Amino acid sequence: MSLSVQKYSGKTLGNIEKIKEVALFIKKHMEMGKNLVVVVSAMGDTTDRLLEMAGQISEDPDKRELAVLMTSGEQVSIALLTIALHEIGVDAMSMTGPQIGLMTSGSHTRSVITDLDEKVILEKLAEGKVVIVAGFQGVNEENEITTLGRGGSDTTAVALAARLGCPCELFADIDGVYTVNPNYYPNARKLAEISYDEMLEMATAGADIVNSRAIELAQRYKVPLSVSLSGSDYPGTIIKEMESNMESTAITGIAINNDEAMISITGIPNDMKTMADLFEKMADKYINIDMISQTMPKNKLVSLSFTIEKGDIGSAKKLLDEFAESIDSVKYEIVENICKLSVMGLGMLTQSGVAAKLFRILADHHIEVSTITTSEIKISYVIAPEDQRTAVEAIAQEFNL
Amino acid sequence: MSLSVQKYSGKTLGNIEKIKEVALFIKKHMEMGKNLVVVVSAMGDTTDRLLEMAGQISEDPDKRELAVLMTSGEQVSIALLTIALHEIGVDAMSMTGPQIGLMTSGSHTRSVITDLDEKVILEKLAEGKVVIVAGFQGVNEENEITTLGRGGSDTTAVALAARLGCPCELFADIDGVYTVNPNYYPNARKLAEISYDEMLEMATAGADIVNSRAIELAQRYKVPLSVSLSGSDYPGTIIKEMESNMESTAITGIAINNDEAMISITGIPNDMKTMADLFEKMADKYINIDMISQTMPKNKLVSLSFTIEKGDIGSAKKLLDEFAESIDSVKYEIVENICKLSVMGLGMLTQSGVAAKLFRILADHHIEVSTITTSEIKISYVIAPEDQRTAVEAIAQEFNL
Repeated sequence: MSLSVQKYSGKTLGNIEKIKEVALFIKKHMEMGKNLVVVVSAMGDTTDRLLEMAGQISEDPDKRELAVLMTSGEQVSIALLTIALHEIGVDAMSMTGPQIGLMTSGSHTRSVITDLDEKVILEKLAEGKVVIVAGFQGVNEENEITTLGRGGSDTTAVALAARLGCPCELFADIDGVYTVNPNYYPNARKLAEISYDEMLEMATAGADIVNSRAIELAQRYKVPLSVSLSGSDYPGTIIKEMESNMESTAITGIAINNDEAMISITGIPNDMKTMADLFEKMADKYINIDMISQTMPKNKLVSLSFTIEKGDIGSAKKLLDEFAESIDSVKYEIVENICKLSVMGLGMLTQSGVAAKLFRILADHHIEVSTITTSEIKISYVIAPEDQRTAVEAIAQEFNL
Repeated sequence: MSLSVQKYSGKTLGNIEKIKEVALFIKKHMEMGKNLVVVVSAMGDTTDRLLEMAGQISEDPDKRELAVLMTSGEQVSIALLTIALHEIGVDAMSMTGPQIGLMTSGSHTRSVITDLDEKVILEKLAEGKVVIVAGFQGVNEENEITTLGRGGSDTTAVALAARLGCPCELFADIDGVYTVNPNYYPNARKLAEISYDEMLEMATAGADIVNSRAIELAQRYKVPLSVSLSGSDYPGTIIKEMESNMESTAITGIAINNDEAMISITGIPNDMKTMADLFEKMADKYINIDMISQTMPKNKLVSLSFTIEKGDIGSAKKLLDEFAESIDSVKYEIVENICKLSVMGLGMLTQSGVAAKLFRILADHHIEVSTITTSEIKISYVIAPEDQRTAVEAIAQEFNL
């Protein structure tokens, strides 16, 4: 028998009929001789619906309570999927995050896994059971409920696969990883395989396929990862260690992120302490900051801009109001209407001129770029949402994606 | 500061606006100098909705998984109410059943409380916090999630009040206990007080106001109990120890229960072993049986009838099918369309002729009774649902309810 951790996304479990389909799909895998641990997300848009309810009560709800609220979603999924498996004769059993001893630390809603108890799972597997685990959730040292943040179920699945020493199969409502999100560019190609590094850049750039922490974890513990369409026998995309070589295509893919907002602050005194204080406070509130850019000082004052996730605007506003109150010259602005477009590929490591070519394409199409950041294998641009389509099509055609 | 356990019913928390209203009501009580532990049910019809989802997958879903499913509802309530309290400046903190160490034993979906850890609550109270506890849920010795059955949040609240040595205030969408459910008899009177015994008979007879186990627990531990309208300053009904005396009214109230089904079995061999086996199997499945009646044997065969909760029909059917298969002569029938009407009062202890008077009233109105059971202070009848209205009005008028 081969052991495998499977993870089913919220969309594949969107309603009762879909849950029954996933149960049948799991049964099929078992009949192929697999021992399975199955990690599930909350059904469909449950998490968003719960967050919306909290949002109707408070602009900045307590994170401890948000974690209590949101973990209810996965609890519903594990129970219903287990019942559906029983109904078709599969011996299954649900487990919550606390029940598998998934220990965490850090923010209640963006905690990191510190430990998990695979023994309880191995016991149940030895009894011939499929173990259905609630993704996304854990418990901290104070016995408080925590969540792993958006896409946390992927992280739960990879962490389990790492501990159990087996592959991790992610099943979603897409049949694999594409060069560009097909919703934005219908001619995009599906990739048979992609490196951990490229997938990680895609994920951090906002491609909403696999959670970036899950990819990091898979890379660190060498967990073979795949993304496939739930219910289909057709192979998806395999994510694995790959070397860059001369033949690597310059660009593997484009990722588009519309879930970030741009914050611009002017009139900041040019000393490191002020800056450090501000960023420290942001970090304390677990606000992720990306695409930082700073102007040259003018009259000993600097301007600073960076992007944050839209979900963090409430918390960020509070801090920025305090910051602006404490320093007279400081003013800030939040622009929610931005698009972050990232282009990535291992080929950038070995081929020169990729950046130049990209600038030329954007200039030819009169697309204005407000911020740019680069990594070894990725270039990210902030552009206006109305330019998104033109930019994606031009780049995709030029690089044959 | 006086300590009190308050419990808010699902209907008082039916939507976001109602949750905000409950938060304001709690704040008002705190400003009156109360220290509060608040127990909440699932919002509105959440529990029914979750059960319906499970019902769409399986006719007889596994109880372990049902408990996992259903406890998600209270988890949502505690988080949202706590967030609403924070929003109006009240220092509050949510706690799940497992977090207050509410230990249980027995069936996963009808477990009984064996222990709870009031220390963790006292700690938080000492910090000036309102503690918001998820009702209905606990955890058994195997660290599995369990529920206390329908109305289990009342039981959680009374158990907490017993341990903390304080009164328990139940807040609902009704302003107290009435002689008859006003939906069935608009002229019914509200009772200022009622004895534990009478309330218990009302509850077991199906008056859906306070859970019967909660009343038993309150009586055993002498917990002062009250039922009041959420949001109102007007006093509700106090449930307490009362003595029967000459002036006790003969009948305190009428309870109507439309949630039971009648099972009639014919052709059962007249030996105690067969009967005992059947009832034991029912008990193993945690099926509550009420209003048992048995005919005199005829050709060494007896007929038996009893009522069960409609929710148990699925489990009961399985057992009865097996029973009928194992004994040739056995046939059974389930009648779902029945009404159980119960009349109760401490006065029955001291006044004679109450039963005779009731029979006369039913006979005068041509109401057929299929089964009767009696206790010291209660008489229950199974009648046809179409006779319910006539029977209630006739009895209520005759006894001035």
